[in-house]
Amino acid sequence: MNYGIVLKVLGSLLLFEAGFLLFPLGISMYYRESDTLAFVYSIIALLGVGVPMVKFSHSSRRIKAKEALTIVVGGWVLVSFFGSLPFVLSGSIPSFIDAFFETVSGLTTTGATIIDDIEVLPRGILFWRSLTHWLGGMGILVLTLAILPVIGVGGFQIFKAESPGPVSDKLVPKMKDTAKILYTVYLGITILQTVLLYVGGMSLYEALVHTFGTLGTGGFSTRNSSIGAFNSYIQIIIAIFMIASGINFSLYYDLYKGRWKEVVKNSELKLYLSIIVVAIILITINLNGRIYTSLNETFRYALFQVSSIITTTGYGTADFDQWPTFSKGILFMLMFVGGCAGSTGGSIKVIRLLVLFKLVRREISKILHPRAFIPVKINNKSISPDVTASVASFFFLYMLIFVAGTLLISLEGIGLISAASSVAATLGNIGPGFELVGPAQTYSQFSVPSKLLFSLLMLFGRLELFTVFILLMPTFWRDR
Amino acid sequence: MNYGIVLKVLGSLLLFEAGFLLFPLGISMYYRESDTLAFVYSIIALLGVGVPMVKFSHSSRRIKAKEALTIVVGGWVLVSFFGSLPFVLSGSIPSFIDAFFETVSGLTTTGATIIDDIEVLPRGILFWRSLTHWLGGMGILVLTLAILPVIGVGGFQIFKAESPGPVSDKLVPKMKDTAKILYTVYLGITILQTVLLYVGGMSLYEALVHTFGTLGTGGFSTRNSSIGAFNSYIQIIIAIFMIASGINFSLYYDLYKGRWKEVVKNSELKLYLSIIVVAIILITINLNGRIYTSLNETFRYALFQVSSIITTTGYGTADFDQWPTFSKGILFMLMFVGGCAGSTGGSIKVIRLLVLFKLVRREISKILHPRAFIPVKINNKSISPDVTASVASFFFLYMLIFVAGTLLISLEGIGLISAASSVAATLGNIGPGFELVGPAQTYSQFSVPSKLLFSLLMLFGRLELFTVFILLMPTFWRDR
Repeated sequence: MNYGIVLKVLGSLLLFEAGFLLFPLGISMYYRESDTLAFVYSIIALLGVGVPMVKFSHSSRRIKAKEALTIVVGGWVLVSFFGSLPFVLSGSIPSFIDAFFETVSGLTTTGATIIDDIEVLPRGILFWRSLTHWLGGMGILVLTLAILPVIGVGGFQIFKAESPGPVSDKLVPKMKDTAKILYTVYLGITILQTVLLYVGGMSLYEALVHTFGTLGTGGFSTRNSSIGAFNSYIQIIIAIFMIASGINFSLYYDLYKGRWKEVVKNSELKLYLSIIVVAIILITINLNGRIYTSLNETFRYALFQVSSIITTTGYGTADFDQWPTFSKGILFMLMFVGGCAGSTGGSIKVIRLLVLFKLVRREISKILHPRAFIPVKINNKSISPDVTASVASFFFLYMLIFVAGTLLISLEGIGLISAASSVAATLGNIGPGFELVGPAQTYSQFSVPSKLLFSLLMLFGRLELFTVFILLMPTFWRDR
Repeated sequence: MNYGIVLKVLGSLLLFEAGFLLFPLGISMYYRESDTLAFVYSIIALLGVGVPMVKFSHSSRRIKAKEALTIVVGGWVLVSFFGSLPFVLSGSIPSFIDAFFETVSGLTTTGATIIDDIEVLPRGILFWRSLTHWLGGMGILVLTLAILPVIGVGGFQIFKAESPGPVSDKLVPKMKDTAKILYTVYLGITILQTVLLYVGGMSLYEALVHTFGTLGTGGFSTRNSSIGAFNSYIQIIIAIFMIASGINFSLYYDLYKGRWKEVVKNSELKLYLSIIVVAIILITINLNGRIYTSLNETFRYALFQVSSIITTTGYGTADFDQWPTFSKGILFMLMFVGGCAGSTGGSIKVIRLLVLFKLVRREISKILHPRAFIPVKINNKSISPDVTASVASFFFLYMLIFVAGTLLISLEGIGLISAASSVAATLGNIGPGFELVGPAQTYSQFSVPSKLLFSLLMLFGRLELFTVFILLMPTFWRDR
């Protein structure tokens, strides 16, 4: 392992974080709130650790898979660690474990919270809390669309073909070009949504905070009743932008380049939108006249909750835990779908489910035509057996971690639905689940070991399982 | 499709069933009970339909995949249909749908029941009810170990290597030889367990009935409190024979031939036994001093319930629905494990999980060594990518059917745990689940559409999903 380059890159991430802390510091100073010093101290701490780290020398410029994995996982953990300082230092979240949980939840764009009353917290703190969603969302886009495909880490080959930007033989320039395109698209959508929310009656501050939560598919709000506190125009704008944030961001680049056809024909996008439409229709039929009286109202609630869960955002306009089992069952299922690959959404992701559907279909054809060679095709391109095996092992590992996590959390002495849905909601980076972690509840009730386990699950889900899993294996550190 | 041969084989299955109905008829006559005529009429009906069917002529002796699939699924449905006649004609189960559910449950060795009070029914009827387990268990052994590997139906290649008997180029003689070996082993174990139960104080009648339920991993009992009604010697004997029935039956042939090494080194067997041991230990720790007072007693309950669920039998000595969430969670997870391939156990099966575990392990190695070629090996033999794809699509399809089934059953207006566990328990051919379908409950409360759906799920699970799935597809009937 080339520790020099690992420390150097991690150091620059910390300096990067210090820079972003200037925004909540500004908010805090503008509103003259009590949390100003907490940001100042946090920035000093980041500089104190980050500056010596970037001075580390290293022999080679080459980053191999091992260094990349260590940087990705170490970066997410380190940035979460320092990101929790403002919460602790301001006294907003007195316990460090709670603050760490909240920051991991922010940076992994999960949106699970341990804060029972959000509305009493200072605006600088809440701004930072939501900014972690925006940073985490940006981070995951750069990671899945620019970095991982280039270094060829297993299981990401599937995203490779869709990585935007010019094709280049040189790895670092290609990474930088792709990242630049992504920054531009991300910033553009941020501005657009903020304006639309501001026009709808939100303050600029709330418009920004909720744009961060939407675009990162995070889900942190400034209100205890989440998006239910706002008017129906705002609810629909947020629903639309949640759906947009669950789409592969390289498709926006295609759109910008006028490649309409590629977007319209994209099989993952088609499946993603179909699942959303079918889920909304089924829930609307199930709820109409039962929970809500008008079809219009029912549709709006169905649209919002479906978009929120499938994109793994976690915003709410209704306490869906009070819905009938059928509707709850659909939402529970959507927790295992997630957004498209190359979006800020988490969970299993539509492309993997698409590959698995095609595998099932091919299996059936093979039984009927035992001698035929039938390739698995996505967007008219054949998928290699290596990639299908990769997808299959991802799906199985996801289920294994879900089951193991549920068993461990059930030791809290809570019911199976609470345990299973809290694990599904953290592993899938969603946020709220059912029963004890329903939309009207928080994660504050759990013990310290459970909160640490949830933090680990959020990292597992956000970093595509294998990335974290490998670092936990002794062979990774032994193996040369 | 060669309908002549399909009808001929289905006809002989019906005559076969008529022959087996002579046993409960004998029991009924011996005890001079009210159900005698019901058996006589059922036998007449079977002969009336079966005799003309076997007279069908056919042009070719060759059975291709399509005919085989139609015979397997059609056979299971037809035998279930006629097998429900005694229940209806004797008035034991007045509703035909209920009787059909009960017979499908018997022949698929599920053991889910719609009978709220078993103890009032005549002995001939209960004997027939349990004999369906024994016949279904025998049927599935012959199907998975003798028939499917030979005709090469997709997804069963994995069992092929383990099919016992001499290697032969001629298909039908090989099938017959393998089947003969299986009959002998099956009959031998039946006699052994019956004797051991009889020695433990059961009547010969009850010893036979419970041997049928154990060996077929079915779970029908003659008592409302299941095996809880018997002494601890009987409970332990049944636990041991449940575990034995979840083992690949071709290993018994290996044992008989003195091939100890192959048995001891079998990776599926090792994983199966390890899962059982770990589950028993975890549940014992979780329950001891909490639900039961002595360690000895706790262990016995854990042993029995774990063996019963993992082998998909469904017998009970405790109402495990009253256990803490952690123990319930382990049992719920075991519902998705099942027995070994080539056993009478249902569900996903240990060999498939083993392949998926190895896929995950290989994926991790591939990330660390991107250029290495790493095959998936089971028992030191490489598994082809076709087989791993087959296993992956089975696992995914299993989850899809589980989710779709749960959503449909949740329309009954019951809780998510009741809906999910009833679907897991029927699809996995287990029997009891949790809450409304817990060990102290029955399936009598469900509506007719749900009972039919459960029957379909039991067939899906028993016939390895694809077999039934393909027949439901229009292409199967259109395609030439």
